[in-house]
Amino acid sequence: MFRRLKQILIGSPLETAALPEQRLSKKSALAVLASDNLSSTAYATEEILLALTAAAAVGMMIPIHYVVPLAGAIAILTAIVAVSYAQTMHAYPTGGGAYTVAKENLGVTPALAGGAALLLDYILTVAVSVAAGIAAITSAVPSLLPYRVQLCALAVTAILLVNLRGVRESAAVLAGPVYFFILSMFVLIVGGLVRYFQGAVAPPPPVEVHEVWGLAYVFLILRGFAHGCVALTGVEAVANGVRIFRLPVARNASITLYVMAGLLASMFLGTSFLASVYGFLPRTDETLLSQIGRAIYGAGPVYYAIQGATMAILILAANTSFTGFPRLASVVAQDRFLPRQLANLGDRLVFSNGMIFLAFVAIALLVLFGGDVHALIPLYMVGVFLAFTLSQAGMVVHWRRSREPGKGWRMAVNAVGAVATGLVLIVVTVVKFMEGAWMIIIALGVLMFVFRRIRDHYYVVGRELSLADYEKPEELRHTAVVPVPGSPNKMVLAAIEYARSISKDVIAIHINRDEVDREELQQQWHAWSPDVPLVVLDSPYRAITQPLMRFIDEIHNWRDEDVVTVVIPEFVTGRWWHHFLHNQTTAFLKVALLFKPHVVVTSVPHHLRR
Amino acid sequence: MFRRLKQILIGSPLETAALPEQRLSKKSALAVLASDNLSSTAYATEEILLALTAAAAVGMMIPIHYVVPLAGAIAILTAIVAVSYAQTMHAYPTGGGAYTVAKENLGVTPALAGGAALLLDYILTVAVSVAAGIAAITSAVPSLLPYRVQLCALAVTAILLVNLRGVRESAAVLAGPVYFFILSMFVLIVGGLVRYFQGAVAPPPPVEVHEVWGLAYVFLILRGFAHGCVALTGVEAVANGVRIFRLPVARNASITLYVMAGLLASMFLGTSFLASVYGFLPRTDETLLSQIGRAIYGAGPVYYAIQGATMAILILAANTSFTGFPRLASVVAQDRFLPRQLANLGDRLVFSNGMIFLAFVAIALLVLFGGDVHALIPLYMVGVFLAFTLSQAGMVVHWRRSREPGKGWRMAVNAVGAVATGLVLIVVTVVKFMEGAWMIIIALGVLMFVFRRIRDHYYVVGRELSLADYEKPEELRHTAVVPVPGSPNKMVLAAIEYARSISKDVIAIHINRDEVDREELQQQWHAWSPDVPLVVLDSPYRAITQPLMRFIDEIHNWRDEDVVTVVIPEFVTGRWWHHFLHNQTTAFLKVALLFKPHVVVTSVPHHLRR
Repeated sequence: MFRRLKQILIGSPLETAALPEQRLSKKSALAVLASDNLSSTAYATEEILLALTAAAAVGMMIPIHYVVPLAGAIAILTAIVAVSYAQTMHAYPTGGGAYTVAKENLGVTPALAGGAALLLDYILTVAVSVAAGIAAITSAVPSLLPYRVQLCALAVTAILLVNLRGVRESAAVLAGPVYFFILSMFVLIVGGLVRYFQGAVAPPPPVEVHEVWGLAYVFLILRGFAHGCVALTGVEAVANGVRIFRLPVARNASITLYVMAGLLASMFLGTSFLASVYGFLPRTDETLLSQIGRAIYGAGPVYYAIQGATMAILILAANTSFTGFPRLASVVAQDRFLPRQLANLGDRLVFSNGMIFLAFVAIALLVLFGGDVHALIPLYMVGVFLAFTLSQAGMVVHWRRSREPGKGWRMAVNAVGAVATGLVLIVVTVVKFMEGAWMIIIALGVLMFVFRRIRDHYYVVGRELSLADYEKPEELRHTAVVPVPGSPNKMVLAAIEYARSISKDVIAIHINRDEVDREELQQQWHAWSPDVPLVVLDSPYRAITQPLMRFIDEIHNWRDEDVVTVVIPEFVTGRWWHHFLHNQTTAFLKVALLFKPHVVVTSVPHHLRR
Repeated sequence: MFRRLKQILIGSPLETAALPEQRLSKKSALAVLASDNLSSTAYATEEILLALTAAAAVGMMIPIHYVVPLAGAIAILTAIVAVSYAQTMHAYPTGGGAYTVAKENLGVTPALAGGAALLLDYILTVAVSVAAGIAAITSAVPSLLPYRVQLCALAVTAILLVNLRGVRESAAVLAGPVYFFILSMFVLIVGGLVRYFQGAVAPPPPVEVHEVWGLAYVFLILRGFAHGCVALTGVEAVANGVRIFRLPVARNASITLYVMAGLLASMFLGTSFLASVYGFLPRTDETLLSQIGRAIYGAGPVYYAIQGATMAILILAANTSFTGFPRLASVVAQDRFLPRQLANLGDRLVFSNGMIFLAFVAIALLVLFGGDVHALIPLYMVGVFLAFTLSQAGMVVHWRRSREPGKGWRMAVNAVGAVATGLVLIVVTVVKFMEGAWMIIIALGVLMFVFRRIRDHYYVVGRELSLADYEKPEELRHTAVVPVPGSPNKMVLAAIEYARSISKDVIAIHINRDEVDREELQQQWHAWSPDVPLVVLDSPYRAITQPLMRFIDEIHNWRDEDVVTVVIPEFVTGRWWHHFLHNQTTAFLKVALLFKPHVVVTSVPHHLRR
């Protein structure tokens, strides 16, 4: 039944050989990888304005007219990052996330920092974007507000299921909303520009600007810049997910990356320009995008379509993480810094375990914060720019070592990228440190520590299991012990017969909890199983485990055997609820024996007909 | 660590031989068994008044002056039931609950009805009395109201822990509050009577009575009677718990029962008389007992002591169930109508499993109803009187068959008891049917069905395991199969060596998920383990379980072996969190193999040094 349900929800298993067919066209890949990045245009302009208007609170004039120059600067930064990542993909066509690039060129510690930063970002992206999307829905339908945590969990689960179906299926589901969002943003921007150039827009009231140049003012502008840099989150998704592109990978991925960066820059600049010329300011009860949309198209169908598309893209931004997180986790797990089950391809040729883990952690975060993860938004930009910087810096080293023709200008591009993103990293960390960036720094440290501990563990285990000093043992000698209830029955005798087939020394053990007649019991046993001795152990405290453990110790001391095999008769019931009527003692016994050295536990199942 | 915690919370294990020492004196037994019964005096009078004042709602005059006659009738009923149960204990000194008596004299179906009724009552008593006690606390400290479910769960857990410590320990904890409650009730009643006979109490305003004799009026009086019968709940606890008394059991238990009935009757009559002469009526914001207490002693220390004692006894009423439920469940489980683990004595010579189950179900009910279980109160009286009636009726049959001298008058006593409680059962069922008694009838039916199904299951299993048609099999032949990862290591070779020691036919199986070099793998294996063949099974869908299952089927078809033993190398990690780094595949494999007939699963543990 479970298998049937699984098949309906995520489809039949796919052959490993089908992996190449799972690769995507540029259009599909854009849908899968760009939703996180493009969705940030829904709020990046607003973030700049929010940072700038904070000036009002400290009595400074509001330098609102800086919004377009700041957006321009961020667009240029986007271009630098995109060109820079194109070089990375050229050099690492099998997937060049910050982790891989840093590991190959900078060493393990920077690689772990980059990997930790990206993994954290992916988790935070899921939590934040789903919460933002659900918040948009609950502000439209306030009666749903009490259920927002449940709705968030539902949305994460839905995205998880789509992704478990495989990359191609998720592309098919995502393409519609992503392209519809792009379309609706251009409808908004073009409509706004047309009205503006027709002169139909009242110019905003002139703002009197006291430009008090000073440190506070510089900090204010930097703050606007740092907040606006949220537009760059998700750019690295293409470079990390490069393996899902069709051949030639590097070319297809680069083109997609440039298209994405172009779309991002134009949408971001467009909305920033409109906000500036229409003179809109952030409001607590309505988003900036909604204000612009209503001003241009009125509260009609076009406006609602734009709002709907925005909500959808915010939720789907989480999808990018479902592509990125499991792939990165798999690479890190192959290097033994994460549990090895994260490295496995699932039924549908995606890294299912990583996806399930991501969904679980994201839902846990959403539950912990009651679905209100606004406080997390400032956090993840630190991780994003740390990954950018490590990745570009790694590329500089890569090109210096490389012998490829044209390595000079590629290195120059990456160096510009490294310096630019490194500066932004410093700005973002300083500006946002008190807002919560310090938490990210702690979390990164903890994750890096855990990575190293996991690898140490696997290393120690590997050395312990190594055959370097292996000597083939002499033939094993072992005694089989069969715990039996009071009188013999078919199930117990089957276990005894099995034990006799695996060892010459079989001992039946009865743990005496309620004063049985030893004489009679011995006679019964002798009648049914004459060549297996029965030992009756008294258990005045009615415990089962301890007397058996002590007896096993005695066998080890006395016979100097290599192994004691405990053969346990066990019921397998036909109906699941029958299970509660049996096996309670067995379960305890098995757990206890597992931890005892030189003991092997064997279950001889009795399959009940009913 | 778990064992240490357990020892602190519930104490060291007790020897079975210490069972007689766990028996209680009459004083201690009264504390353990009477709290449920005596606590009902805290609300029984109020219940009668509530039922009578309902008349006002339908325009009838309120026959408040009936409260004392009704309380008197219920006191007489208590006496009948007590005398009647004394005969039961005389005949069944090993514990004569409704279940045992009905089973021996009336047959299985009435016994199951009685058992189901009592088990339900015990569960409902825990839920209702804890909820009532916590409600008393939250009405004193309203800021605790949002946490009432948690407080209820905490109270149940505390009572559970005290009871898991054993009968003697729980008596020591309980004696204080129970005797303090009895004392405070007598202080209340005596104080009230003194003031009344000194003439210090203003007589209540005379009530003009239109005694419209008619069916509605009769029903009203019966309703008052039925509601007041809540005072009798818990009387059966002494008869069910008779085994905890010191020898001579029947005599000690009878004396305790009479003392309890005497205390109940005098406290109940006392409060009813005071309510009547002081002219108090039920109020939604204050209990009747609180009104009486404040009128007599003012809102001073005596009043608060009485209120505190009442709260404590309401919560401790749940304790009686923790004595009764597990004992009854153990008797029913010995007859195979309940899972057999409920029959076991735990570490501290109490039926721990039954107690834990009771606490679990009660907490589940409390959570389900949000800690507001007022609606459940009318329900459980149906069960109580069903059990009374079955028990007494069974005793009538018992004495008719008996040859004991004096059986005549004993039978007469039980017959009077049976008729009286039977009549009350009819009244209670009719009066309370629409209030929810129908739910109890459904629940009883379901429980009786489940009892029978459980016994049927054990019966079928017993027949299946019976040795009546047993033929000793020829020597078992079996093949051992060892699933191995890619290249050999110490853990895998240890499993191979073990397999070689238990079977002549050992096959190593590698499930090929990622296109290994078969040639190289075969060579590696041959070098380390030349006499064990390695079979490589391709798994294009990356599944582990299915290819192994198919291979086992092939062995069965091809070699006609009796059993295939699957020897699984398994990690046992030193630290619990290391477990997540290993064994994921192993766990899936073990579950899948458990359900496959003719397969025995053997875990060969590798104990990691770190």
